[in-house]
Amino acid sequence: MTIQPENQAIAQEHAAENSAAGDAIALICGGGSFPRAVADAIARRGRRPVMFAIKGWADSKVIEQYPHHWIALGQLGRFCRLARAEHCHDVLFIGTLLRPAIRDLRLDWPTVRAMPRIIRSFRGGDDHLLSGVANILADAGLRIIAVHDVAPEILVPDGVLGRCQPSARDRADIARAFEVLAALGPFDIGQGAVVADNNVLAVEAAEGTDNMLSRLIELRRHGRVTARPGIGVLAKAPKPSQDRRFDLPAIGPRTIEYAARAGLAGVAVAAGSAIIADAAETIAVADRAGIFLAGVGRGSV
Amino acid sequence: MTIQPENQAIAQEHAAENSAAGDAIALICGGGSFPRAVADAIARRGRRPVMFAIKGWADSKVIEQYPHHWIALGQLGRFCRLARAEHCHDVLFIGTLLRPAIRDLRLDWPTVRAMPRIIRSFRGGDDHLLSGVANILADAGLRIIAVHDVAPEILVPDGVLGRCQPSARDRADIARAFEVLAALGPFDIGQGAVVADNNVLAVEAAEGTDNMLSRLIELRRHGRVTARPGIGVLAKAPKPSQDRRFDLPAIGPRTIEYAARAGLAGVAVAAGSAIIADAAETIAVADRAGIFLAGVGRGSV
Repeated sequence: MTIQPENQAIAQEHAAENSAAGDAIALICGGGSFPRAVADAIARRGRRPVMFAIKGWADSKVIEQYPHHWIALGQLGRFCRLARAEHCHDVLFIGTLLRPAIRDLRLDWPTVRAMPRIIRSFRGGDDHLLSGVANILADAGLRIIAVHDVAPEILVPDGVLGRCQPSARDRADIARAFEVLAALGPFDIGQGAVVADNNVLAVEAAEGTDNMLSRLIELRRHGRVTARPGIGVLAKAPKPSQDRRFDLPAIGPRTIEYAARAGLAGVAVAAGSAIIADAAETIAVADRAGIFLAGVGRGSV
Repeated sequence: MTIQPENQAIAQEHAAENSAAGDAIALICGGGSFPRAVADAIARRGRRPVMFAIKGWADSKVIEQYPHHWIALGQLGRFCRLARAEHCHDVLFIGTLLRPAIRDLRLDWPTVRAMPRIIRSFRGGDDHLLSGVANILADAGLRIIAVHDVAPEILVPDGVLGRCQPSARDRADIARAFEVLAALGPFDIGQGAVVADNNVLAVEAAEGTDNMLSRLIELRRHGRVTARPGIGVLAKAPKPSQDRRFDLPAIGPRTIEYAARAGLAGVAVAAGSAIIADAAETIAVADRAGIFLAGVGRGSV
């Protein structure tokens, strides 16, 4: 698979060409830069992205280059109305969307009616929450699609992406880290783990990958992680049970920068099911830092 | 089981009475306050604790009330010589002993000869490291014993220790947290996990329990943990594979303080296989904070 640099000009041109078409896709946009990467990829393929930016989560700089609406969490009724007005039938969730506090929700009537289902979803991790939302949208005639349906080129391909290659020890660490992630799958948590020379140094839960790596940087500074720099891998994979229409693991330049500062040898992500935002820059950062970046398919460690 | 307050006067008196006896126990002391709690319990039972304080880890205030020697990590030869001179045949490891950097070790000759075994132990987590050391000591005629052999009263008993009782939700969270710990057992990592309303919020690896709880305090401050205060439990248990002669999970007043600041409902530890230091104070802190503290036996959640 070839990873192309983002080309904003082409993206906007395509978006303009298709603005009258009914072939629009509603992107429900959480935080981070991934929503734009997905919108760009959708536009390059001649479909029209319409951004539904979640207040408090989405970054206005990321979403404002496409037609967009701001929505509050909990306004499913408003969302469905706007999505229909924009001729969207397909809905794609993208970007960080942390478990919202129930007290932060502003509920409209269709959402209030759906509350019993939503409340039930809150117990038991993100997967259940998001599956609950999916069911509600389906009732409104909206189809939830996945990134791989419309923009497979922003998923991490199989193989080493940059110049640095993982060593035999790194490959063993990658395998062990993926085993840790698989063991935690039933508990519907994190998508990241760090293993260095066969020792599990960190497991991601509610804190997110960047925070987990920051912790390693701190532990190293205080001498509590003593593996010498250049040993250890960050592995990211979707949970075994994960509905891949939501919340795929994602990496970007910042992930690589943190991994390098944490003294790791590299980053390995599940091939075909993790998003790489700004691929060219992400790979360039890895090459500059001298760490590897690899997509790992089944049985390819 | 009755938990008695520490009684330093009695402890020292007993230690003095038995100072001429050959029935001495060598305590290899890492960090934290637990070594003194164990030494006090040993002295109360009429045996003579001799503290071997590890330089850079042990706290001089904790060890200096008993006969003691300072040893550097890696000086197994010196330790064996001193232990024999003190008529110790039993050796007990106690206190925090983080994975040392190989570069920090000062090796004496018996240790250098043992290095191939020690180096092998460094791969694969604490259990392997400590088991490697145990074998080396056994070769020198020293018997490694466990806390439950000499001071079972400092292990957390089954049942609720303070005034607050876990709710039905707390009990479900406790069960789930222990499931997480069991799933991670094969990977030889941490002894702690936090679950709130069925969501796994944090998993402990190299950072230690206090750091894990500090992270939750931070995540809550930044709105990334939104469970309302008073929900969630910290669970601690030995790894399924853990050699209980080393590195038992431990709780003390600080654990409770951090758990309270992290907004948790309480703390649950595996009954009979976790150390409670300063039990009276630990329980008092839990009662003041309004959180529960429970020892959980098999099938008693």
